[in-house]
Amino acid sequence: MTHEGYIHGYNDREMVRLNDQAETLDRIIHNDTYFNPGSLVLEAGCGVGAQTRIIAPQNREATFISIDISADSISEARKQLERSRITNVELRQADIYDLPFADEYFDGVMVCFVLEHLGDPVKALIELKRVLKKNGKMIVIEGDHGSAFFYPESRFARLAIDCQVKLQAHNGGNCNIGRALYPLMTSAGLLHVSVTPRVVYADASKPELVEGFIKSTFTAMIEGIRDKATKEGMMDKDDFDKGIHDLYRTSEPDGVFSYTFFKGFAVK
Amino acid sequence: MTHEGYIHGYNDREMVRLNDQAETLDRIIHNDTYFNPGSLVLEAGCGVGAQTRIIAPQNREATFISIDISADSISEARKQLERSRITNVELRQADIYDLPFADEYFDGVMVCFVLEHLGDPVKALIELKRVLKKNGKMIVIEGDHGSAFFYPESRFARLAIDCQVKLQAHNGGNCNIGRALYPLMTSAGLLHVSVTPRVVYADASKPELVEGFIKSTFTAMIEGIRDKATKEGMMDKDDFDKGIHDLYRTSEPDGVFSYTFFKGFAVK
Repeated sequence: MTHEGYIHGYNDREMVRLNDQAETLDRIIHNDTYFNPGSLVLEAGCGVGAQTRIIAPQNREATFISIDISADSISEARKQLERSRITNVELRQADIYDLPFADEYFDGVMVCFVLEHLGDPVKALIELKRVLKKNGKMIVIEGDHGSAFFYPESRFARLAIDCQVKLQAHNGGNCNIGRALYPLMTSAGLLHVSVTPRVVYADASKPELVEGFIKSTFTAMIEGIRDKATKEGMMDKDDFDKGIHDLYRTSEPDGVFSYTFFKGFAVK
Repeated sequence: MTHEGYIHGYNDREMVRLNDQAETLDRIIHNDTYFNPGSLVLEAGCGVGAQTRIIAPQNREATFISIDISADSISEARKQLERSRITNVELRQADIYDLPFADEYFDGVMVCFVLEHLGDPVKALIELKRVLKKNGKMIVIEGDHGSAFFYPESRFARLAIDCQVKLQAHNGGNCNIGRALYPLMTSAGLLHVSVTPRVVYADASKPELVEGFIKSTFTAMIEGIRDKATKEGMMDKDDFDKGIHDLYRTSEPDGVFSYTFFKGFAVK
Protein backbone atom coordinates (compact mmCIF):
# COMPACT_ATOMS: atom_id res chain seq x y z
CA MET A 1 0.00 0.00 0.00
CA THR A 2 1.28 3.42 -0.91
CA HIS A 3 0.13 6.73 0.48
CA GLU A 4 -1.29 7.53 -2.97
CA GLY A 5 -3.31 4.32 -3.01
CA TYR A 6 -5.74 5.58 -0.37
CA ILE A 7 -8.74 6.49 -2.49
CA HIS A 8 -10.53 8.72 -0.01
CA GLY A 9 -7.72 11.28 -0.04
CA TYR A 10 -6.51 13.37 2.85
CA ASN A 11 -8.42 16.62 2.65
CA ASP A 12 -10.27 18.36 5.46
CA ARG A 13 -13.76 17.38 4.40
CA GLU A 14 -12.61 13.77 4.35
CA MET A 15 -11.34 14.08 7.92
CA VAL A 16 -14.72 15.42 9.03
CA ARG A 17 -16.42 12.54 7.24
CA LEU A 18 -14.22 9.90 8.86
CA ASN A 19 -14.93 11.39 12.27
CA ASP A 20 -18.69 11.55 11.61
CA GLN A 21 -18.51 7.93 10.55
CA ALA A 22 -16.85 6.88 13.77
CA GLU A 23 -19.36 8.66 15.97
CA THR A 24 -22.44 7.13 14.40
CA LEU A 25 -21.05 3.66 14.03
CA ASP A 26 -19.16 3.29 17.25
CA ARG A 27 -21.81 1.37 19.14
CA ILE A 28 -22.62 -0.94 16.25
CA ILE A 29 -19.05 -1.91 15.46
CA HIS A 30 -17.12 -1.29 18.68
CA ASN A 31 -19.54 -2.45 21.40
CA ASP A 32 -17.26 -5.48 21.92
CA THR A 33 -13.83 -4.06 21.01
CA TYR A 34 -12.18 -4.92 24.32
CA PHE A 35 -8.65 -5.95 25.25
CA ASN A 36 -7.51 -7.24 28.64
CA PRO A 37 -6.23 -4.65 31.15
CA GLY A 38 -2.48 -4.30 30.78
CA SER A 39 -2.50 -5.35 27.12
CA LEU A 40 -0.19 -3.81 24.55
CA VAL A 41 -2.30 -3.45 21.40
CA LEU A 42 -1.26 -2.64 17.83
CA GLU A 43 -3.79 -0.62 15.86
CA ALA A 44 -2.70 -0.95 12.25
CA GLY A 45 -3.80 1.69 9.77
CA CYS A 46 -5.13 4.21 12.26
CA GLY A 47 -5.43 7.03 9.72
CA VAL A 48 -6.43 10.28 11.41
CA GLY A 49 -7.35 8.40 14.57
CA ALA A 50 -11.11 8.17 14.09
CA GLN A 51 -11.29 4.64 15.52
CA THR A 52 -8.43 5.24 17.96
CA ARG A 53 -10.51 7.91 19.67
CA ILE A 54 -13.21 5.32 20.33
CA ILE A 55 -11.21 2.26 21.30
CA ALA A 56 -8.47 3.91 23.39
CA PRO A 57 -10.87 5.52 25.94
CA GLN A 58 -12.90 2.30 25.93
CA ASN A 59 -9.74 0.34 26.88
CA ARG A 60 -8.12 2.73 29.34
CA GLU A 61 -6.06 0.02 30.99
CA ALA A 62 -4.55 -1.08 27.68
CA THR A 63 -1.76 0.70 25.80
CA PHE A 64 -2.03 1.22 22.06
CA ILE A 65 0.62 1.64 19.41
CA SER A 66 -1.26 3.05 16.42
CA ILE A 67 0.51 3.08 13.08
CA ASP A 68 -0.26 4.43 9.63
CA ILE A 69 1.66 4.60 6.35
CA SER A 70 0.83 8.32 6.02
CA ALA A 71 2.91 10.81 8.03
CA ASP A 72 0.20 13.45 7.43
CA SER A 73 -2.45 11.20 8.94
CA ILE A 74 -0.23 10.42 11.95
CA SER A 75 0.35 14.13 12.45
CA GLU A 76 -3.41 14.86 12.31
CA ALA A 77 -4.15 11.88 14.58
CA ARG A 78 -1.66 13.28 17.11
CA LYS A 79 -3.52 16.63 17.20
CA GLN A 80 -6.87 14.87 17.60
CA LEU A 81 -5.66 12.65 20.43
CA GLU A 82 -4.11 15.59 22.25
CA ARG A 83 -7.33 17.56 21.87
CA SER A 84 -9.25 14.59 23.32
CA ARG A 85 -6.66 14.18 26.11
CA ILE A 86 -6.09 10.56 25.18
CA THR A 87 -2.80 9.41 26.69
CA ASN A 88 -2.69 5.62 26.24
CA VAL A 89 -1.75 5.77 22.55
CA GLU A 90 1.67 6.01 20.91
CA LEU A 91 1.55 7.03 17.24
CA ARG A 92 4.13 5.90 14.67
CA GLN A 93 4.49 5.97 10.93
CA ALA A 94 4.96 2.38 9.73
CA ASP A 95 4.16 -0.02 6.90
CA ILE A 96 1.58 -2.72 7.66
CA TYR A 97 3.46 -5.12 5.34
CA ASP A 98 6.78 -4.60 7.14
CA LEU A 99 6.15 -3.83 10.80
CA PRO A 100 9.06 -2.44 12.86
CA PHE A 101 8.28 -4.77 15.79
CA ALA A 102 9.72 -8.04 17.04
CA ASP A 103 7.80 -11.32 16.70
CA GLU A 104 5.12 -11.83 19.35
CA TYR A 105 5.42 -8.26 20.59
CA PHE A 106 1.72 -7.45 21.07
CA ASP A 107 -1.05 -8.90 23.23
CA GLY A 108 -3.67 -7.70 20.76
CA VAL A 109 -4.01 -6.41 17.21
CA MET A 110 -6.83 -4.38 15.77
CA VAL A 111 -7.47 -3.44 12.13
CA CYS A 112 -10.45 -1.32 11.11
CA PHE A 113 -11.31 -0.20 7.55
CA VAL A 114 -7.79 -0.98 6.34
CA LEU A 115 -7.75 -4.32 4.49
CA GLU A 116 -10.17 -2.84 1.93
CA HIS A 117 -7.32 -0.60 0.70
CA LEU A 118 -4.64 -3.29 0.44
CA GLY A 119 -3.57 -5.23 -2.61
CA ASP A 120 -2.60 -8.26 -0.51
CA PRO A 121 -4.72 -8.40 2.65
CA VAL A 122 -3.62 -11.93 3.57
CA LYS A 123 0.05 -10.85 3.48
CA ALA A 124 -0.84 -8.00 5.86
CA LEU A 125 -2.73 -10.37 8.19
CA ILE A 126 0.26 -12.76 8.24
CA GLU A 127 2.58 -9.88 9.13
CA LEU A 128 0.16 -8.75 11.87
CA LYS A 129 0.01 -12.33 13.14
CA ARG A 130 3.80 -12.36 13.32
CA VAL A 131 3.89 -9.53 15.85
CA LEU A 132 0.97 -10.99 17.87
CA LYS A 133 1.70 -13.21 20.88
CA LYS A 134 0.48 -16.81 20.88
CA ASN A 135 -3.12 -16.78 22.17
CA GLY A 136 -3.23 -13.03 21.47
CA LYS A 137 -6.45 -11.56 20.12
CA MET A 138 -6.90 -10.06 16.65
CA ILE A 139 -9.93 -7.95 15.74
CA VAL A 140 -10.62 -7.02 12.11
CA ILE A 141 -13.46 -4.77 10.97
CA GLU A 142 -14.31 -4.04 7.33
CA GLY A 143 -17.24 -2.69 5.35
CA ASP A 144 -18.77 -4.16 2.20
CA HIS A 145 -20.28 -1.84 -0.41
CA GLY A 146 -21.94 -4.81 -2.13
CA SER A 147 -24.01 -5.23 1.02
CA ALA A 148 -25.71 -1.86 0.53
CA PHE A 149 -29.35 -1.85 -0.48
CA PHE A 150 -32.02 0.74 -0.11
CA TYR A 151 -35.54 1.87 -0.79
CA PRO A 152 -36.51 3.28 -3.18
CA GLU A 153 -34.20 1.23 -5.41
CA SER A 154 -32.23 3.23 -8.01
CA ARG A 155 -30.14 2.08 -10.95
CA PHE A 156 -28.20 5.38 -10.95
CA ALA A 157 -27.36 5.05 -7.25
CA ARG A 158 -26.08 1.51 -7.92
CA LEU A 159 -23.93 2.77 -10.80
CA ALA A 160 -22.49 5.58 -8.66
CA ILE A 161 -21.60 3.07 -5.90
CA ASP A 162 -20.04 0.83 -8.57
CA CYS A 163 -17.76 3.75 -9.56
CA GLN A 164 -16.37 3.73 -6.02
CA VAL A 165 -15.90 -0.05 -6.17
CA LYS A 166 -14.06 0.25 -9.50
CA LEU A 167 -11.88 3.18 -8.40
CA GLN A 168 -10.86 1.36 -5.25
CA ALA A 169 -10.17 -1.83 -7.25
CA HIS A 170 -8.09 0.25 -9.66
CA ASN A 171 -5.98 1.30 -6.66
CA GLY A 172 -5.56 -2.35 -5.68
CA GLY A 173 -8.25 -2.35 -2.99
CA ASN A 174 -11.57 -4.12 -2.56
CA CYS A 175 -14.73 -2.32 -1.37
CA ASN A 176 -16.54 -5.64 -0.99
CA ILE A 177 -13.96 -7.21 1.31
CA GLY A 178 -16.18 -7.46 4.40
CA ARG A 179 -17.90 -10.67 3.27
CA ALA A 180 -14.49 -12.28 2.74
CA LEU A 181 -13.18 -11.73 6.29
CA TYR A 182 -13.73 -15.33 7.33
CA PRO A 183 -11.79 -16.90 4.44
CA LEU A 184 -9.09 -14.21 4.64
CA MET A 185 -8.51 -14.65 8.37
CA THR A 186 -8.53 -18.44 8.20
CA SER A 187 -6.13 -18.48 5.26
CA ALA A 188 -3.74 -16.25 7.23
CA GLY A 189 -3.59 -19.15 9.71
CA LEU A 190 -5.50 -17.46 12.52
CA LEU A 191 -7.41 -19.71 14.92
CA HIS A 192 -10.96 -19.68 16.28
CA VAL A 193 -12.04 -17.21 13.62
CA SER A 194 -15.52 -15.87 14.31
CA VAL A 195 -17.12 -13.27 12.05
CA THR A 196 -20.36 -11.43 12.73
CA PRO A 197 -22.28 -9.02 10.49
CA ARG A 198 -22.91 -5.55 11.92
CA VAL A 199 -25.86 -4.09 10.08
CA VAL A 200 -26.49 -0.38 9.90
CA TYR A 201 -30.20 -0.23 9.12
CA ALA A 202 -31.68 3.25 8.92
CA ASP A 203 -35.28 4.32 8.44
CA ALA A 204 -37.18 7.42 9.54
CA SER A 205 -37.52 6.06 13.08
CA LYS A 206 -33.73 6.36 13.44
CA PRO A 207 -32.98 10.00 12.55
CA GLU A 208 -29.43 9.84 13.99
CA LEU A 209 -28.46 7.05 11.62
CA VAL A 210 -30.28 8.65 8.67
CA GLU A 211 -28.30 11.84 9.22
CA GLY A 212 -25.06 10.29 10.47
CA PHE A 213 -24.84 7.31 8.19
CA ILE A 214 -26.98 7.61 5.02
CA LYS A 215 -26.22 11.29 4.46
CA SER A 216 -22.98 12.27 6.22
CA THR A 217 -21.15 8.98 5.79
CA PHE A 218 -22.18 6.79 2.89
CA THR A 219 -23.63 9.30 0.42
CA ALA A 220 -20.92 11.86 1.28
CA MET A 221 -18.28 9.22 0.52
CA ILE A 222 -19.80 8.42 -2.89
CA GLU A 223 -20.28 12.13 -3.60
CA GLY A 224 -16.58 12.58 -2.83
CA ILE A 225 -15.51 10.60 -5.92
CA ARG A 226 -17.68 12.61 -8.35
CA ASP A 227 -14.74 14.35 -10.02
CA LYS A 228 -12.59 11.25 -10.35
CA ALA A 229 -15.43 9.07 -11.58
CA THR A 230 -16.76 11.55 -14.12
CA LYS A 231 -13.29 12.67 -15.32
CA GLU A 232 -12.37 9.06 -15.97
CA GLY A 233 -15.59 8.70 -17.97
CA MET A 234 -16.99 6.02 -15.70
CA MET A 235 -20.31 7.84 -15.59
CA ASP A 236 -21.99 10.91 -17.08
CA LYS A 237 -22.05 13.86 -14.67
CA ASP A 238 -25.86 13.99 -14.93
CA ASP A 239 -26.25 10.29 -14.26
CA PHE A 240 -23.82 10.44 -11.36
CA ASP A 241 -25.70 13.38 -9.85
CA LYS A 242 -28.95 11.47 -10.28
CA GLY A 243 -27.36 8.59 -8.36
CA ILE A 244 -26.36 10.94 -5.54
CA HIS A 245 -29.84 12.48 -5.55
CA ASP A 246 -31.36 8.99 -5.29
CA LEU A 247 -29.05 8.08 -2.39
CA TYR A 248 -30.17 11.21 -0.53
CA ARG A 249 -33.74 10.27 -1.50
CA THR A 250 -33.41 7.14 0.69
CA SER A 251 -33.06 9.44 3.71
CA GLU A 252 -36.58 10.84 3.27
CA PRO A 253 -39.36 9.74 5.65
CA ASP A 254 -40.37 6.73 3.51
CA GLY A 255 -36.80 5.75 2.62
CA VAL A 256 -34.67 2.92 3.98
CA PHE A 257 -30.95 2.15 3.80
CA SER A 258 -29.07 -0.95 4.90
CA TYR A 259 -25.31 -1.55 4.98
CA THR A 260 -23.37 -4.39 6.56
CA PHE A 261 -19.99 -4.18 8.23
CA PHE A 262 -18.22 -7.37 9.27
CA LYS A 263 -16.22 -7.89 12.44
CA GLY A 264 -13.86 -10.81 12.85
CA PHE A 265 -12.32 -12.08 16.08
CA ALA A 266 -9.47 -14.58 16.07
CA VAL A 267 -6.52 -15.76 18.13
CA LYS A 268 -3.02 -16.76 17.13
CA MET B 1 -53.88 -13.06 -4.42
CA THR B 2 -55.00 -16.21 -6.17
CA HIS B 3 -54.01 -19.76 -5.38
CA GLU B 4 -52.16 -19.86 -8.72
CA GLY B 5 -50.21 -16.73 -7.89
CA TYR B 6 -48.08 -18.50 -5.29
CA ILE B 7 -44.86 -18.98 -7.18
CA HIS B 8 -43.32 -21.68 -5.02
CA GLY B 9 -46.08 -24.16 -5.88
CA TYR B 10 -47.58 -26.75 -3.62
CA ASN B 11 -45.66 -29.95 -4.25
CA ASP B 12 -44.10 -32.24 -1.65
CA ARG B 13 -40.52 -31.07 -2.10
CA GLU B 14 -41.70 -27.51 -1.52
CA MET B 15 -43.34 -28.56 1.73
CA VAL B 16 -40.09 -30.13 2.90
CA ARG B 17 -38.24 -26.95 1.95
CA LEU B 18 -40.64 -24.67 3.83
CA ASN B 19 -40.29 -26.84 6.91
CA ASP B 20 -36.47 -26.90 6.66
CA GLN B 21 -36.57 -23.14 6.33
CA ALA B 22 -38.60 -22.77 9.48
CA GLU B 23 -36.31 -24.96 11.55
CA THR B 24 -33.09 -23.18 10.66
CA LEU B 25 -34.46 -19.66 10.86
CA ASP B 26 -36.70 -19.92 13.88
CA ARG B 27 -34.30 -18.46 16.40
CA ILE B 28 -33.19 -15.62 14.13
CA ILE B 29 -36.66 -14.45 13.15
CA HIS B 30 -38.93 -15.69 15.95
CA ASN B 31 -36.85 -15.13 19.09
CA ASP B 32 -39.19 -12.24 19.95
CA THR B 33 -42.49 -13.39 18.40
CA TYR B 34 -44.50 -13.20 21.61
CA PHE B 35 -48.13 -12.34 22.32
CA ASN B 36 -49.65 -11.73 25.74
CA PRO B 37 -51.18 -14.75 27.53
CA GLY B 38 -54.88 -14.98 26.69
CA SER B 39 -54.45 -13.20 23.33
CA LEU B 40 -56.46 -14.18 20.28
CA VAL B 41 -54.01 -13.91 17.38
CA LEU B 42 -54.62 -13.98 13.62
CA GLU B 43 -51.87 -15.59 11.57
CA ALA B 44 -52.56 -14.51 8.00
CA GLY B 45 -51.15 -16.64 5.16
CA CYS B 46 -50.09 -19.62 7.24
CA GLY B 47 -49.46 -21.87 4.24
CA VAL B 48 -48.66 -25.41 5.35
CA GLY B 49 -48.10 -24.21 8.90
CA ALA B 50 -44.31 -23.95 8.89
CA GLN B 51 -44.33 -20.78 11.02
CA THR B 52 -47.45 -21.82 12.95
CA ARG B 53 -45.55 -24.80 14.33
CA ILE B 54 -42.93 -22.45 15.78
CA ILE B 55 -45.07 -19.62 17.12
CA ALA B 56 -48.01 -21.61 18.52
CA PRO B 57 -45.90 -23.72 20.94
CA GLN B 58 -43.91 -20.60 21.81
CA ASN B 59 -47.17 -18.82 22.76
CA ARG B 60 -49.04 -21.65 24.52
CA GLU B 61 -51.29 -19.29 26.43
CA ALA B 62 -52.43 -17.54 23.25
CA THR B 63 -54.98 -18.86 20.76
CA PHE B 64 -54.30 -18.62 17.04
CA ILE B 65 -56.64 -18.47 14.09
CA SER B 66 -54.42 -19.26 11.10
CA ILE B 67 -55.80 -18.60 7.65
CA ASP B 68 -54.65 -19.23 4.11
CA ILE B 69 -56.18 -18.73 0.66
CA SER B 70 -55.29 -22.30 -0.33
CA ALA B 71 -57.55 -25.11 0.91
CA ASP B 72 -54.77 -27.61 0.10
CA SER B 73 -52.32 -25.77 2.33
CA ILE B 74 -54.86 -25.55 5.14
CA SER B 75 -55.45 -29.28 4.83
CA GLU B 76 -51.72 -30.03 4.96
CA ALA B 77 -51.24 -27.59 7.85
CA ARG B 78 -54.00 -29.43 9.75
CA LYS B 79 -52.12 -32.76 9.37
CA GLN B 80 -48.86 -31.16 10.48
CA LEU B 81 -50.39 -29.53 13.57
CA GLU B 82 -52.13 -32.78 14.58
CA ARG B 83 -48.85 -34.65 14.17
CA SER B 84 -47.11 -32.06 16.38
CA ARG B 85 -50.02 -32.20 18.90
CA ILE B 86 -50.52 -28.45 18.66
CA THR B 87 -53.97 -27.60 20.00
CA ASN B 88 -54.05 -23.80 20.30
CA VAL B 89 -54.58 -23.18 16.57
CA GLU B 90 -57.79 -23.05 14.56
CA LEU B 91 -57.27 -23.30 10.79
CA ARG B 92 -59.54 -21.64 8.23
CA GLN B 93 -59.49 -20.94 4.54
CA ALA B 94 -59.85 -17.18 4.04
CA ASP B 95 -58.76 -14.27 1.85
CA ILE B 96 -56.31 -11.81 3.41
CA TYR B 97 -57.93 -8.97 1.44
CA ASP B 98 -61.43 -9.79 2.72
CA LEU B 99 -61.21 -11.29 6.19
CA PRO B 100 -64.33 -13.02 7.59
CA PHE B 101 -63.90 -11.34 10.99
CA ALA B 102 -65.51 -8.38 12.71
CA ASP B 103 -63.60 -5.12 13.25
CA GLU B 104 -61.21 -5.18 16.23
CA TYR B 105 -61.64 -8.94 16.70
CA PHE B 106 -58.00 -9.87 17.42
CA ASP B 107 -55.49 -8.92 20.10
CA GLY B 108 -52.61 -9.64 17.77
CA VAL B 109 -51.85 -10.19 14.08
CA MET B 110 -48.86 -11.93 12.59
CA VAL B 111 -47.81 -12.14 8.91
CA CYS B 112 -44.71 -14.04 7.84
CA PHE B 113 -43.44 -14.44 4.25
CA VAL B 114 -46.82 -13.38 2.84
CA LEU B 115 -46.70 -9.73 1.69
CA GLU B 116 -43.99 -10.70 -0.83
CA HIS B 117 -46.65 -12.62 -2.78
CA LEU B 118 -49.30 -9.90 -2.79
CA GLY B 119 -50.04 -7.36 -5.50
CA ASP B 120 -51.26 -4.81 -2.96
CA PRO B 121 -49.52 -5.33 0.39
CA VAL B 122 -50.75 -2.04 1.88
CA LYS B 123 -54.38 -3.04 1.15
CA ALA B 124 -53.74 -6.32 2.99
CA LEU B 125 -52.15 -4.48 5.96
CA ILE B 126 -55.14 -2.11 6.14
CA GLU B 127 -57.53 -5.09 6.18
CA LEU B 128 -55.41 -6.76 8.89
CA LYS B 129 -55.44 -3.52 10.85
CA ARG B 130 -59.25 -3.46 10.60
CA VAL B 131 -59.59 -6.75 12.51
CA LEU B 132 -56.92 -5.76 15.07
CA LYS B 133 -58.00 -4.20 18.38
CA LYS B 134 -56.83 -0.68 19.22
CA ASN B 135 -53.38 -1.03 20.89
CA GLY B 136 -53.16 -4.56 19.46
CA LYS B 137 -49.80 -5.76 18.21
CA MET B 138 -48.94 -6.55 14.60
CA ILE B 139 -45.82 -8.48 13.62
CA VAL B 140 -44.72 -8.67 9.98
CA ILE B 141 -41.74 -10.68 8.74
CA GLU B 142 -40.48 -10.67 5.15
CA GLY B 143 -37.32 -11.64 3.27
CA ASP B 144 -35.46 -9.60 0.68
CA HIS B 145 -33.64 -11.34 -2.16
CA GLY B 146 -31.83 -8.12 -3.05
CA SER B 147 -30.14 -8.37 0.34
CA ALA B 148 -28.34 -11.58 -0.61
CA PHE B 149 -24.61 -11.43 -1.18
CA PHE B 150 -21.99 -14.08 -1.05
CA TYR B 151 -18.38 -15.09 -1.52
CA PRO B 152 -17.15 -16.00 -4.03
CA GLU B 153 -19.20 -13.52 -6.06
CA SER B 154 -20.85 -14.93 -9.22
CA ARG B 155 -22.60 -13.20 -12.09
CA PHE B 156 -24.50 -16.40 -12.94
CA ALA B 157 -25.75 -16.81 -9.39
CA ARG B 158 -26.99 -13.18 -9.47
CA LEU B 159 -28.79 -13.81 -12.77
CA ALA B 160 -30.44 -16.98 -11.41
CA ILE B 161 -31.66 -15.07 -8.34
CA ASP B 162 -32.93 -12.32 -10.65
CA CYS B 163 -35.05 -14.95 -12.45
CA GLN B 164 -36.84 -15.61 -9.17
CA VAL B 165 -37.32 -11.88 -8.61
CA LYS B 166 -38.77 -11.48 -12.12
CA LEU B 167 -41.03 -14.56 -11.88
CA GLN B 168 -42.42 -13.37 -8.56
CA ALA B 169 -42.91 -9.84 -9.95
CA HIS B 170 -44.70 -11.38 -12.96
CA ASN B 171 -47.12 -12.98 -10.47
CA GLY B 172 -47.68 -9.59 -8.84
CA GLY B 173 -45.31 -10.17 -5.93
CA ASN B 174 -42.07 -8.57 -4.77
CA CYS B 175 -39.06 -10.61 -3.63
CA ASN B 176 -37.33 -7.47 -2.38
CA ILE B 177 -40.16 -6.36 -0.11
CA GLY B 178 -38.29 -6.76 3.20
CA ARG B 179 -36.51 -3.41 2.94
CA ALA B 180 -39.86 -1.67 2.36
CA LEU B 181 -41.55 -2.92 5.55
CA TYR B 182 -41.16 0.39 7.36
CA PRO B 183 -42.78 2.55 4.65
CA LEU B 184 -45.47 -0.10 3.99
CA MET B 185 -46.46 -0.42 7.63
CA THR B 186 -46.45 3.33 8.22
CA SER B 187 -48.51 4.01 5.11
CA ALA B 188 -51.09 1.45 6.31
CA GLY B 189 -51.54 3.80 9.28
CA LEU B 190 -49.95 1.54 11.90
CA LEU B 191 -48.34 3.24 14.90
CA HIS B 192 -44.95 2.88 16.63
CA VAL B 193 -43.56 0.99 13.64
CA SER B 194 -40.18 -0.51 14.46
CA VAL B 195 -38.31 -2.62 11.91
CA THR B 196 -35.14 -4.60 12.56
CA PRO B 197 -32.96 -6.53 10.13
CA ARG B 198 -32.46 -10.22 10.88
CA VAL B 199 -29.30 -11.32 9.14
CA VAL B 200 -28.61 -14.93 8.29
CA TYR B 201 -24.82 -14.96 7.91
CA ALA B 202 -23.30 -18.35 7.20
CA ASP B 203 -19.65 -19.33 6.93
CA ALA B 204 -17.86 -22.62 7.59
CA SER B 205 -17.92 -22.01 11.34
CA LYS B 206 -21.75 -22.31 11.21
CA PRO B 207 -22.34 -25.71 9.52
CA GLU B 208 -26.02 -25.79 10.55
CA LEU B 209 -26.76 -22.57 8.70
CA VAL B 210 -24.61 -23.57 5.73
CA GLU B 211 -26.61 -26.78 5.39
CA GLY B 212 -29.98 -25.48 6.55
CA PHE B 213 -29.97 -22.09 4.89
CA ILE B 214 -27.49 -21.77 2.00
CA LYS B 215 -28.14 -25.25 0.63
CA SER B 216 -31.55 -26.52 1.78
CA THR B 217 -33.36 -23.19 1.82
CA PHE B 218 -32.03 -20.48 -0.45
CA THR B 219 -30.29 -22.46 -3.19
CA ALA B 220 -33.04 -25.11 -3.16
CA MET B 221 -35.61 -22.34 -3.69
CA ILE B 222 -33.73 -20.89 -6.67
CA GLU B 223 -33.13 -24.39 -8.05
CA GLY B 224 -36.89 -24.95 -7.81
CA ILE B 225 -37.62 -22.36 -10.53
CA ARG B 226 -35.16 -23.89 -13.06
CA ASP B 227 -37.88 -25.21 -15.36
CA LYS B 228 -40.02 -22.08 -15.31
CA ALA B 229 -37.07 -19.72 -15.74
CA THR B 230 -35.45 -21.66 -18.56
CA LYS B 231 -38.74 -22.46 -20.35
CA GLU B 232 -39.63 -18.79 -20.37
CA GLY B 233 -36.21 -18.07 -21.89
CA MET B 234 -35.10 -15.92 -18.97
CA MET B 235 -31.79 -17.78 -18.86
CA ASP B 236 -29.92 -20.53 -20.72
CA LYS B 237 -30.10 -23.88 -18.96
CA ASP B 238 -26.30 -24.01 -18.82
CA ASP B 239 -26.01 -20.52 -17.37
CA PHE B 240 -28.76 -21.22 -14.85
CA ASP B 241 -27.02 -24.43 -13.78
CA LYS B 242 -23.76 -22.52 -13.44
CA GLY B 243 -25.60 -20.05 -11.17
CA ILE B 244 -26.88 -22.91 -9.01
CA HIS B 245 -23.40 -24.45 -8.94
CA ASP B 246 -21.96 -21.12 -7.82
CA LEU B 247 -24.59 -20.77 -5.07
CA TYR B 248 -23.66 -24.23 -3.76
CA ARG B 249 -20.02 -23.15 -4.10
CA THR B 250 -20.61 -20.52 -1.39
CA SER B 251 -21.28 -23.38 1.04
CA GLU B 252 -17.71 -24.71 0.74
CA PRO B 253 -15.23 -24.13 3.59
CA ASP B 254 -14.01 -20.77 2.22
CA GLY B 255 -17.47 -19.60 1.15
CA VAL B 256 -19.78 -17.07 2.79
CA PHE B 257 -23.46 -16.24 2.36
CA SER B 258 -25.49 -13.39 3.83
CA TYR B 259 -29.24 -12.79 3.62
CA THR B 260 -31.38 -10.29 5.49
CA PHE B 261 -34.94 -10.78 6.69
CA PHE B 262 -36.85 -7.85 8.14
CA LYS B 263 -39.19 -7.95 11.11
CA GLY B 264 -41.62 -5.15 11.82
CA PHE B 265 -43.52 -4.53 15.04
CA ALA B 266 -46.38 -2.03 15.22
CA VAL B 267 -49.53 -1.26 17.12
CA LYS B 268 -52.93 -0.03 15.96
